[in-house]
Amino acid sequence: MPFRKIINDPVYGFITINDPLIYKIISHPWFQRLRRISQMAMSYLVYPGAVHSRLHHALGAYHLMHNALYELRTKDNEITDKEEQAAKIAILLHDIGHGPFSHALESLLVEDLEHETLSLLIMNELNDEMGGALNMAIEIFNNTYHKKFLHQLVSGQLDVDRMDYLTRDSFFSGVIEGMIGYDRILKMLTVHEGELMVEEKGIYSIEEFLVSRRLMYWQVYQHKTVLSAEMTLVKVLERAKWLFNNHPSTIDANNRLGSLIFREIEHFSKADLALFCDLDDSDVVSAIKNWRNHEDPVLSLLCNTLMSRKLFKLRLQSDPITEEEVLEKRVMISKKLSISEEDASYLVFIGEAENSLYNLNNERINILFKDGTVKDISQVDSPLIHQTLSRPVKKFYICFYQP
Amino acid sequence: MPFRKIINDPVYGFITINDPLIYKIISHPWFQRLRRISQMAMSYLVYPGAVHSRLHHALGAYHLMHNALYELRTKDNEITDKEEQAAKIAILLHDIGHGPFSHALESLLVEDLEHETLSLLIMNELNDEMGGALNMAIEIFNNTYHKKFLHQLVSGQLDVDRMDYLTRDSFFSGVIEGMIGYDRILKMLTVHEGELMVEEKGIYSIEEFLVSRRLMYWQVYQHKTVLSAEMTLVKVLERAKWLFNNHPSTIDANNRLGSLIFREIEHFSKADLALFCDLDDSDVVSAIKNWRNHEDPVLSLLCNTLMSRKLFKLRLQSDPITEEEVLEKRVMISKKLSISEEDASYLVFIGEAENSLYNLNNERINILFKDGTVKDISQVDSPLIHQTLSRPVKKFYICFYQP
Amino acid sequence: MPFRKIINDPVYGFITINDPLIYKIISHPWFQRLRRISQMAMSYLVYPGAVHSRLHHALGAYHLMHNALYELRTKDNEITDKEEQAAKIAILLHDIGHGPFSHALESLLVEDLEHETLSLLIMNELNDEMGGALNMAIEIFNNTYHKKFLHQLVSGQLDVDRMDYLTRDSFFSGVIEGMIGYDRILKMLTVHEGELMVEEKGIYSIEEFLVSRRLMYWQVYQHKTVLSAEMTLVKVLERAKWLFNNHPSTIDANNRLGSLIFREIEHFSKADLALFCDLDDSDVVSAIKNWRNHEDPVLSLLCNTLMSRKLFKLRLQSDPITEEEVLEKRVMISKKLSISEEDASYLVFIGEAENSLYNLNNERINILFKDGTVKDISQVDSPLIHQTLSRPVKKFYICFYQP
Amino acid sequence: MPFRKIINDPVYGFITINDPLIYKIISHPWFQRLRRISQMAMSYLVYPGAVHSRLHHALGAYHLMHNALYELRTKDNEITDKEEQAAKIAILLHDIGHGPFSHALESLLVEDLEHETLSLLIMNELNDEMGGALNMAIEIFNNTYHKKFLHQLVSGQLDVDRMDYLTRDSFFSGVIEGMIGYDRILKMLTVHEGELMVEEKGIYSIEEFLVSRRLMYWQVYQHKTVLSAEMTLVKVLERAKWLFNNHPSTIDANNRLGSLIFREIEHFSKADLALFCDLDDSDVVSAIKNWRNHEDPVLSLLCNTLMSRKLFKLRLQSDPITEEEVLEKRVMISKKLSISEEDASYLVFIGEAENSLYNLNNERINILFKDGTVKDISQVDSPLIHQTLSRPVKKFYICFYQP
Repeated sequence: MPFRKIINDPVYGFITINDPLIYKIISHPWFQRLRRISQMAMSYLVYPGAVHSRLHHALGAYHLMHNALYELRTKDNEITDKEEQAAKIAILLHDIGHGPFSHALESLLVEDLEHETLSLLIMNELNDEMGGALNMAIEIFNNTYHKKFLHQLVSGQLDVDRMDYLTRDSFFSGVIEGMIGYDRILKMLTVHEGELMVEEKGIYSIEEFLVSRRLMYWQVYQHKTVLSAEMTLVKVLERAKWLFNNHPSTIDANNRLGSLIFREIEHFSKADLALFCDLDDSDVVSAIKNWRNHEDPVLSLLCNTLMSRKLFKLRLQSDPITEEEVLEKRVMISKKLSISEEDASYLVFIGEAENSLYNLNNERINILFKDGTVKDISQVDSPLIHQTLSRPVKKFYICFYQP
Repeated sequence: MPFRKIINDPVYGFITINDPLIYKIISHPWFQRLRRISQMAMSYLVYPGAVHSRLHHALGAYHLMHNALYELRTKDNEITDKEEQAAKIAILLHDIGHGPFSHALESLLVEDLEHETLSLLIMNELNDEMGGALNMAIEIFNNTYHKKFLHQLVSGQLDVDRMDYLTRDSFFSGVIEGMIGYDRILKMLTVHEGELMVEEKGIYSIEEFLVSRRLMYWQVYQHKTVLSAEMTLVKVLERAKWLFNNHPSTIDANNRLGSLIFREIEHFSKADLALFCDLDDSDVVSAIKNWRNHEDPVLSLLCNTLMSRKLFKLRLQSDPITEEEVLEKRVMISKKLSISEEDASYLVFIGEAENSLYNLNNERINILFKDGTVKDISQVDSPLIHQTLSRPVKKFYICFYQP
Repeated sequence: MPFRKIINDPVYGFITINDPLIYKIISHPWFQRLRRISQMAMSYLVYPGAVHSRLHHALGAYHLMHNALYELRTKDNEITDKEEQAAKIAILLHDIGHGPFSHALESLLVEDLEHETLSLLIMNELNDEMGGALNMAIEIFNNTYHKKFLHQLVSGQLDVDRMDYLTRDSFFSGVIEGMIGYDRILKMLTVHEGELMVEEKGIYSIEEFLVSRRLMYWQVYQHKTVLSAEMTLVKVLERAKWLFNNHPSTIDANNRLGSLIFREIEHFSKADLALFCDLDDSDVVSAIKNWRNHEDPVLSLLCNTLMSRKLFKLRLQSDPITEEEVLEKRVMISKKLSISEEDASYLVFIGEAENSLYNLNNERINILFKDGTVKDISQVDSPLIHQTLSRPVKKFYICFYQP
Repeated sequence: MPFRKIINDPVYGFITINDPLIYKIISHPWFQRLRRISQMAMSYLVYPGAVHSRLHHALGAYHLMHNALYELRTKDNEITDKEEQAAKIAILLHDIGHGPFSHALESLLVEDLEHETLSLLIMNELNDEMGGALNMAIEIFNNTYHKKFLHQLVSGQLDVDRMDYLTRDSFFSGVIEGMIGYDRILKMLTVHEGELMVEEKGIYSIEEFLVSRRLMYWQVYQHKTVLSAEMTLVKVLERAKWLFNNHPSTIDANNRLGSLIFREIEHFSKADLALFCDLDDSDVVSAIKNWRNHEDPVLSLLCNTLMSRKLFKLRLQSDPITEEEVLEKRVMISKKLSISEEDASYLVFIGEAENSLYNLNNERINILFKDGTVKDISQVDSPLIHQTLSRPVKKFYICFYQP
């Protein structure tokens, strides 16, 4: 009997694993760890269904990669079995560098290291462990493999990563208007001069895809309540670090979370990587639950806020928040709680949210016309996605505790 | 036991009828006739699932009207039971003036009468039959009722008609990316100074709704194969009329279809209305099947084309089709088939398709902000729907028989 | 570019045709005719969404066949490309012998010929036309091909025909509890000693499948209103035949429908086959609409009943209907309408509906256990489907006009 | 503006909260805690989508309660606004007594206290806090309220709890064949002589409901891999307790989990309740992660097993497991790992799984026929659910570590 594992997925029906190496990677504890990392961080506080895991997303993206390669092959693009395996591994591991609460805590758990960098470190480590079996996957991930379209499927404006997360996130959150026509887009993919393109007939589906992304961004990912919770989570860790540096006796750093986040890491060692790969959402939740009764009133307030879902107010607007407002609110809070204004800055803070409908500077989405010409999606006839829409939309917010 | 009928609907689950008058209207043979009129005309030749009926759409729009009124009431807008009944009747009957193959044959079966005019004629007739029970429904339909938002729910840029047909058509055709967030839009509706508005939180859903409409228009309703079939259908009837006028002995007009379409109707009488309300898709299909063997080579060719789905080629482009190309193709066909060039004009013809993302001249979609200000959807901050996009997109096509 | 056509399907997403021969068969006018034949006959009078066509079902079953063969191949069952093509053709054409309104009028349009026999006649005819390209498909259909499991996929207790119609019918009717786990069942299929079997892990899905079929049968296919409409349709044709034989001048037989159903056919010729393959639902609907004004009061009453959906009452019960009741009702009607009692028998009639949860006499559903043993689904441990449930359930009905 | 909160739900679309008291209960930290308790315990190790929370289920059951009461009211059953509120509160809180990992750890965290008992304790506590506002809800929960059908909706063979969890669990796990027709069942509910009944037309939907439950039980809830993981989780806590009692210095009990589970609780005090209501899945996961490196080889092995998903083998069978097999396996393991046979009993253990299709001893599902007679679902004509099927199905399993 050939090797085959099937996994039920409410989004795609079944996901099939028929390659022992891929199954080995999926079975690795570092990959299994993704089961305990929420894909949408704290969105579940607004969308209770949005509790799916990073592992589920990785499997979904793998499934779409399988389908994409199948379609491209039926259009006579040569893809070897080895390349198929490598592209599938690359997409499975593309996000493995995410830590607890994914984007919400990125660059914070391991200072200044983005998840792509961590993904690469982990892939290299796994590659060593598996005797070089991931070489080609890493080349594709790094865009050093000569068939550029394989990298574009892993990472680009129209990669299977985005296709899966938009589909999956809209499915689990119940925001059905965020649904994209992933199936049609996959069938419209083609390769032209080594690059990934979309057939002419797919133009409207691509436009819909970009607009759905815009909607998901503002309506779900940056929903003001979600933003408030996730920024509060950031403040929790910032405050804990501050306490560790200023009042070390009050913070227990001898645990999984502490041994990583409270250290100045100059060189990120193998041991650090192992520490990182042992973290998941439960470590952060545990810390927060412990700190609810912390002697520092700021830290305990932040933690109680999150755990009992009595969240800070957050206001989004198109103009920058004035310094006056921030100061005024901080003064008010500092008086109310008898804390310093500096301390109050953890309870009243500002930030920005930014999103582009379509990034002209980034890698483009190219349409291949029947006559062989190639046009950027913003250059087709009567485009929905024209120049002015490609400017990023920026919003400013103030987030504050309201006693 | 109170009156209640429930109808299974794959789109919304169940549709409930709990008003005997409404059930009486639904049971009327003129309404039941809509079971035999395809909602999407000939789209089923490309999208085999798109075989749902006008009756199903009318019931769906009725269901959304029910939900819309329910939501508006929970926001303290006064809507009397009588008004609820009237608005439901108005939406049930808003399209009853459609004849066989809906839009595809509009203004052709009954010369120069659009379906809205016919809907009104039929509503008046039913009103007589039911002793004036439809008075308020007709006022709402005609926009003479003082609560303007009720009319806007029946007919406007954001009416439940559109919400149902986009939802239903994308469901049955399987074009899931055409799905709109009807449920959220309904929950975001509100009334401000007597007019229907959308709460601020609904902006992205409205944008998605408009983009989905654009996609459905070009990808489904005006799909080139659908367009080819529907324009051929028009040519069938035009040719039959021409034969009736020029070679009357070759066309049998003594039947349901003939008695209506082959007459010059100066005054559309009650009897004509009854004739019209006896027509459905089967009459047109029967005529086409009969005419497949007609002695006129043009008519028979057109009819065989449709019935065996060997459709004419159709090319859509953004520039007008040149006269030279049309002439050249007609000459070619006339030689090939030994017919006159005039006759060949039924086999080679041109046309235009036009669609606006958002019609600035038409009734607007207004957003009501929390601070009480009202802005058109194209005037909000960082709008997707801005000025340039509200210009209609026009495409030109040539459709021709290719031996 | 290799050959590829994709078809949108709301049930499965996309159906792909990548074989020119199969596309040629689908494009044949005899197959295209299935677009105009309703899969569920008159069920749409109760379930307005149930308007999908025989063509759609045939394409769906083809899609499941594709998936089933794919799964079997991944389990190392040898299936040649030629066999794959043949099995797909066999399933595409398995129901092509259906005439207007499918089962509802079976054996009535062409006396005593069941649709399977007609399917075979048509397949042979197409095979001649296509130079023997359908030879193997016909062998599979007839179960003379040596790989028996291919026939079992086309026709058996667990064939892809049933899997598609249950899935599709529940989808379009909106009876979601009729949904089966077709995807899981396909993945659990295996071949053992040349026969189609189900792996142990699929037991519960098979039970669910059988119970869903039971539900669909009684709740949808034999819903009393559906039954009433379909039996009335039968009476229309029976009455028209009777009139043709007894008062021939009152019935026009010179049309597509008449030339077939009003003849005594001793030998079903090629020409008859062509006549049959030219019929569709529209011919029957047209005849019924014409006969609404027929001079015979019985025929016109039956036709008006159907067209305006003022259907006969129907009562289902577990005991046979008594002769007394039938007689009493006929006498009443004959007096009321001043018609003979014989004539009244078209307006008051009885019948039976029968369905087995699982037919022990028919081909069985076999479960292959991990240890290599094979057990019938009714013989597994703690079976849901045990002996007593395999006895057919029979219900009796009386259907009658109620003035 | 009246009070209204809407919550997106991928299963039902939107859930509406329009009662400030109910919103207050939902906002209570003890209820919010359910966000961090997995509804399906460890099923997500097999079904990666099955990560929905107890809070989500409670909201879903609340939604179905809303719909059920709406339907019953349209059938002229009197239900006061106060009763509606109380029934909704009762269903919201019916499962609030669940601790981490729900059923998997029931009676283990707080010895011998089942979740219903804890639910009641918590409801009483909340009732005190809210000045008696939950009195009627508690009466309904306890079945002391005179309108018995309200209790039956909360807890019975056909309560909205089951309807939601079957629907929700099949949705999130992707086991679509577990889908029930909850919408139809709700519409078929009626009250007869004070008791909840189902109208005759709902018989097949009820049968489907029971069969879906059977399928979900054996295919999902008691899937052998799920069972293995959940029983291993039980062993983790049992071993930790044993260590606490025998080697107390090795176990830190000074934390949220420890302060509850390592104590002999004679009287469950208010303070204990508060402790319990502070626990969630993260506490158990944290403990397991900590114990992976515990000095006790049994505990660390169990914990590593779970966290890296290298689960114990589990075999289900219809006959009891023989003592010989258990002993043999224990001896083998004790030698292999150099541990005592007693210790090995944590790594090789047996158990039973039992489920009834329909429990005749429990409260019945009654069908109300049109003629006023009432029959148990197992007594109707040609029942699917007959006597023999109501006997519980029992399976025996052995679960063991395989080095």
